[in-house]
Amino acid sequence: MGDTMMGLVKEKPGPGAVLKRVPIPECAADEVLIRVKATSICGTDIHIYQWDEWAERTVLTPNVFGHEFAGIVEAVGSEVRGIAPGDHVSAEGHIACGVCKACRTGKAHVCPHTRSFGINAPGCFAEYAVTKAVNVIANRQDLPFELACLQDPLGNAVQSVLAGDIVGKSVAVIGAGPIGLMAVQVAKACGAGTIFAVDVNPLRLQLAERMGADEVIDAGQCSASQRLRECTGGDGVDVVLEMSGNAKAIVDGFDAAASGGRVSLLGIPASEVSLDLSRQIIFKGLRVEGVTGRRMYETWYQMKGLLEQRRIDLTPLVTHTFTLDRYEEAFALMRAGQCGKIVFIH
Amino acid sequence: MGDTMMGLVKEKPGPGAVLKRVPIPECAADEVLIRVKATSICGTDIHIYQWDEWAERTVLTPNVFGHEFAGIVEAVGSEVRGIAPGDHVSAEGHIACGVCKACRTGKAHVCPHTRSFGINAPGCFAEYAVTKAVNVIANRQDLPFELACLQDPLGNAVQSVLAGDIVGKSVAVIGAGPIGLMAVQVAKACGAGTIFAVDVNPLRLQLAERMGADEVIDAGQCSASQRLRECTGGDGVDVVLEMSGNAKAIVDGFDAAASGGRVSLLGIPASEVSLDLSRQIIFKGLRVEGVTGRRMYETWYQMKGLLEQRRIDLTPLVTHTFTLDRYEEAFALMRAGQCGKIVFIH
Amino acid sequence: MGDTMMGLVKEKPGPGAVLKRVPIPECAADEVLIRVKATSICGTDIHIYQWDEWAERTVLTPNVFGHEFAGIVEAVGSEVRGIAPGDHVSAEGHIACGVCKACRTGKAHVCPHTRSFGINAPGCFAEYAVTKAVNVIANRQDLPFELACLQDPLGNAVQSVLAGDIVGKSVAVIGAGPIGLMAVQVAKACGAGTIFAVDVNPLRLQLAERMGADEVIDAGQCSASQRLRECTGGDGVDVVLEMSGNAKAIVDGFDAAASGGRVSLLGIPASEVSLDLSRQIIFKGLRVEGVTGRRMYETWYQMKGLLEQRRIDLTPLVTHTFTLDRYEEAFALMRAGQCGKIVFIH
Amino acid sequence: MGDTMMGLVKEKPGPGAVLKRVPIPECAADEVLIRVKATSICGTDIHIYQWDEWAERTVLTPNVFGHEFAGIVEAVGSEVRGIAPGDHVSAEGHIACGVCKACRTGKAHVCPHTRSFGINAPGCFAEYAVTKAVNVIANRQDLPFELACLQDPLGNAVQSVLAGDIVGKSVAVIGAGPIGLMAVQVAKACGAGTIFAVDVNPLRLQLAERMGADEVIDAGQCSASQRLRECTGGDGVDVVLEMSGNAKAIVDGFDAAASGGRVSLLGIPASEVSLDLSRQIIFKGLRVEGVTGRRMYETWYQMKGLLEQRRIDLTPLVTHTFTLDRYEEAFALMRAGQCGKIVFIH
Repeated sequence: MGDTMMGLVKEKPGPGAVLKRVPIPECAADEVLIRVKATSICGTDIHIYQWDEWAERTVLTPNVFGHEFAGIVEAVGSEVRGIAPGDHVSAEGHIACGVCKACRTGKAHVCPHTRSFGINAPGCFAEYAVTKAVNVIANRQDLPFELACLQDPLGNAVQSVLAGDIVGKSVAVIGAGPIGLMAVQVAKACGAGTIFAVDVNPLRLQLAERMGADEVIDAGQCSASQRLRECTGGDGVDVVLEMSGNAKAIVDGFDAAASGGRVSLLGIPASEVSLDLSRQIIFKGLRVEGVTGRRMYETWYQMKGLLEQRRIDLTPLVTHTFTLDRYEEAFALMRAGQCGKIVFIH
Repeated sequence: MGDTMMGLVKEKPGPGAVLKRVPIPECAADEVLIRVKATSICGTDIHIYQWDEWAERTVLTPNVFGHEFAGIVEAVGSEVRGIAPGDHVSAEGHIACGVCKACRTGKAHVCPHTRSFGINAPGCFAEYAVTKAVNVIANRQDLPFELACLQDPLGNAVQSVLAGDIVGKSVAVIGAGPIGLMAVQVAKACGAGTIFAVDVNPLRLQLAERMGADEVIDAGQCSASQRLRECTGGDGVDVVLEMSGNAKAIVDGFDAAASGGRVSLLGIPASEVSLDLSRQIIFKGLRVEGVTGRRMYETWYQMKGLLEQRRIDLTPLVTHTFTLDRYEEAFALMRAGQCGKIVFIH
Repeated sequence: MGDTMMGLVKEKPGPGAVLKRVPIPECAADEVLIRVKATSICGTDIHIYQWDEWAERTVLTPNVFGHEFAGIVEAVGSEVRGIAPGDHVSAEGHIACGVCKACRTGKAHVCPHTRSFGINAPGCFAEYAVTKAVNVIANRQDLPFELACLQDPLGNAVQSVLAGDIVGKSVAVIGAGPIGLMAVQVAKACGAGTIFAVDVNPLRLQLAERMGADEVIDAGQCSASQRLRECTGGDGVDVVLEMSGNAKAIVDGFDAAASGGRVSLLGIPASEVSLDLSRQIIFKGLRVEGVTGRRMYETWYQMKGLLEQRRIDLTPLVTHTFTLDRYEEAFALMRAGQCGKIVFIH
Repeated sequence: MGDTMMGLVKEKPGPGAVLKRVPIPECAADEVLIRVKATSICGTDIHIYQWDEWAERTVLTPNVFGHEFAGIVEAVGSEVRGIAPGDHVSAEGHIACGVCKACRTGKAHVCPHTRSFGINAPGCFAEYAVTKAVNVIANRQDLPFELACLQDPLGNAVQSVLAGDIVGKSVAVIGAGPIGLMAVQVAKACGAGTIFAVDVNPLRLQLAERMGADEVIDAGQCSASQRLRECTGGDGVDVVLEMSGNAKAIVDGFDAAASGGRVSLLGIPASEVSLDLSRQIIFKGLRVEGVTGRRMYETWYQMKGLLEQRRIDLTPLVTHTFTLDRYEEAFALMRAGQCGKIVFIH
């Protein structure tokens, strides 16, 4: 190991990125240096790559970006305990402060002092990455890197599914992008009753079936809420997992929810959404959960249990793999949306 | 006891009501006949009295209306156990079916087959009332009738406060009508941290202080959400209890809620409300609870504990009492809004 | 349908039972008459059959016993809604009063006024059975009767598994009798991490593997708690499901539980058990749940979801089927313990 | 501020302690140096002072002991944010590792790598103390030091009371030592129904009444469980808070618990306790919670809310105050048990 490495760098505000030689990051006393073995592309990475208003407001440059990864520990800082070179690991991307009220009461995912690995702190689209020891999660050695790197979005799915009771409940996953597809499988692995997947993209609906959806609904061909009511004897679905961020789909999701049910909101709508709170939430006695990130770190331990005993298998979700030098091709494919999850093998 | 009684009757669709002699209702095998001692006027009764679109769609005529009451058991049906003549009682107004999925899974408050005492079933603005034994709740003999009759709206307040953790949390009660005022006192009795009451009506803000609010905010004089952030060191309040039903206040409430907090929605907005779901719910990791009715019957037992040991005292809330023959005066006063709770002594 | 039917009757205190012609039970206004299609033998039935101190204290004679069943609705009482002749059904065996505090606060399983179907009320080892409409649960028509009849003990298993968090948790099922075997499968279907089954009977450990245990431990060959600690990196298991009722196994279970974990107690020890509360519960911050019966009726709806979407498959558990006239053979086999679940096909 | 300070030191294994001049502890980068203003004596300090088997096994010597305190920040380490000299503070005594599974999943109170402030790490019976910034809790400036120092045991009480639902529930506090007395007041402040205090010491029962118990029971004069059943109409109490550690009282507590209720175990029994698990836990569907320490740090924020808005007032509990040089007198009084809480004013 020399002093430099290849890394995919967002050099300055504006579209694009460049693969170039950069210094290997230094590892502080409470940090861990990791040799990256696999990474995956998040929707957020597309925003960084293309550059938009959110990126302008949020993203550090120049910076190695990317935040979903798996790798092998190369070195640990002097104060680090319980992690050793050779360990297979991934890491939570939210670098929370650890001392504020949110951090100290189980809500580190909304810590107001958070820095984000790969967004406003150095990330993982590179040969090496550094992060806080407290953020590192051990992976079993027999878990393939190209699946282990998916735990960041998997955590979103797990947190959405488990934001309330799930066993025996009917579930509608609205929006069958990567996190929605994971949610289908997680819901099934956690004992959900009938699982419906809703999308307008036929490829995604096919993937949803492969991931275990009991029924798929093409919202371009019918009213999803009406169809969901028909399929549940008029009751509506017990649990709605909103992962589309589409205003119309969100409203449809609230209509589809059964009285006494719940709606987990994960998809990010671009503008305001008008709701009939009386009919859609209050008289129904509905519970709504805003889901952001993952529980730090309950969700990671739930994932470990699910992955290590193969209660879930994300293999069908990885539709494409690339080496990092083919990043332009990968990002173009991702933007076109005709894929599941895209993984870089480092 | 003869065969007839005086009752306040909604005779036909349209405004008004008439106090007249009607038959004493019969008591079926699973029912209880109660001599009514005190009743109170709910906002719903105003809708029935004035008659509006909701009433047109919902209300039975001719019918004795009124659903908030306390009384003494006069007789019980042949199958009734555990209730006896002479018992002091009140009753839950939602007459749920008892056999549907909602009823059998602790969600009778959203039973789709519910009949409502005093709305589409005979009520309590009368000398006697009949209801199902399962709906009857025993009151302690030393609990004054004019306070015991307030348990129906008190249940709304209790359920709103206890829809999530409350101990040590900062709380904003938005809308200081009768249920909001009760919520102030219930929150205090249940260990809440700083309790803020928000309204635009100075009389109600005064009542809120008497009921125990630590701070009152006149939303007509300032931005309530901004004020609430200032008073909480910028964090926002942990718990928002929305009891105004006013669209602007609802939006303000979401803005005032702290990350990781919760919003209980009880007030009924008349039309759709536009929300910035990303900023106001999702990124905050917020929980939203639609509150309708009361938990049947957990809430009632919580109330019993609070009332019997005088953890709460609703006396300051009862600003006016009338005999039933002065109903026109009482309804006029209630419509004007210059009151707390109005009680009829029967 | 005539006036009489064949039924397995406990005629008087003392061992044994007799299959004889008895009147078909009458169906009251709030009851349902069911043609029984399959029943299964519970450990309780063995106590009734053999007769012991508990039976002497508890069991009604003469009475048709048996309480685990599935059948088809033959007729419904005049007040029954939502259930119709031809429906496939099973039923909860605890006939709770419905009006006491326990019943009205989601704890009907500990109602002090409960009567028990097949124990101190007429049961199901017969051609027909009657029960309260509120106790009846609809089964899907494609669910085989010989599996549908197992829902009563399955409910014990589901309630034990779901008495706390389960996703990703390591679980030890102690005691691989029928309910323990069901718990293995339910835990797996609900997303548990590594599932250990502990017993001293090799046949049961084999069945546990077929039902999905990740690892089986023969407690006759080693210290189960020591083995469980070894298999969990010294931490102990997150969840202990105690289903043996054996004092030594119970103590071992508490030793095996991880700090911050939980222990669900279902197996009934015959005498007192001495525990080191400081070390085994307090310093561990452990939670202990006494499990009796099933949640009425949340557990049933959880089961419906699991069974209807085939998240679980109880087929391997049914090791023997008989017709009711071979009851002596069936009870003898059950007493010998060399079986999974025994089903009568009616 | 010089280099040394007066501190109460446990110099070597064996009874006693000595007040002597020792170096002021150094403050590392992630630590905070605090000028101690008030401390209080915990039962644990008695064990250290007198020296017993537990102390032999656990306690560091030579060491300044004491762990309950309030003070003013003197200096902060280079990496510390959000705490500044002049702040009034107390601190959690469990110095958890922060990176293990327990710490990362909300269970730092059972972290296996914990060091304990004042037990096996330097404590607070001195002019200055040092602890980790993450353990420090800000107090409001108007909270008197002699009350603020009581938050460590108050946290035990709060965690015991809030280990389950409390609003409207009947509660028996068994053992009216300092934590039991706090629990009485906390239960009342959090909306409990009838609160019973049970002890055999008349002074403590008097204090319990002053702290707000609705009824006190002298367990030396009657069967507490029988009395508790009488006072609850035969049902038993919904919540038992076991704070005596006495085997007979523990058994009595389980007998007194209502079906569907809960028992929080905090008192540490010296030896094994024999329980009738079937009757006392399983058939009752009881929940038992082992309580150790406090939730880190939810409990502290709950306390802040309760203390800052004066929902509780611990003043009656502080029966004696001393200066530190009178430590022998203070420890003698504490051993005799004729006191509430003893506070040192520094």
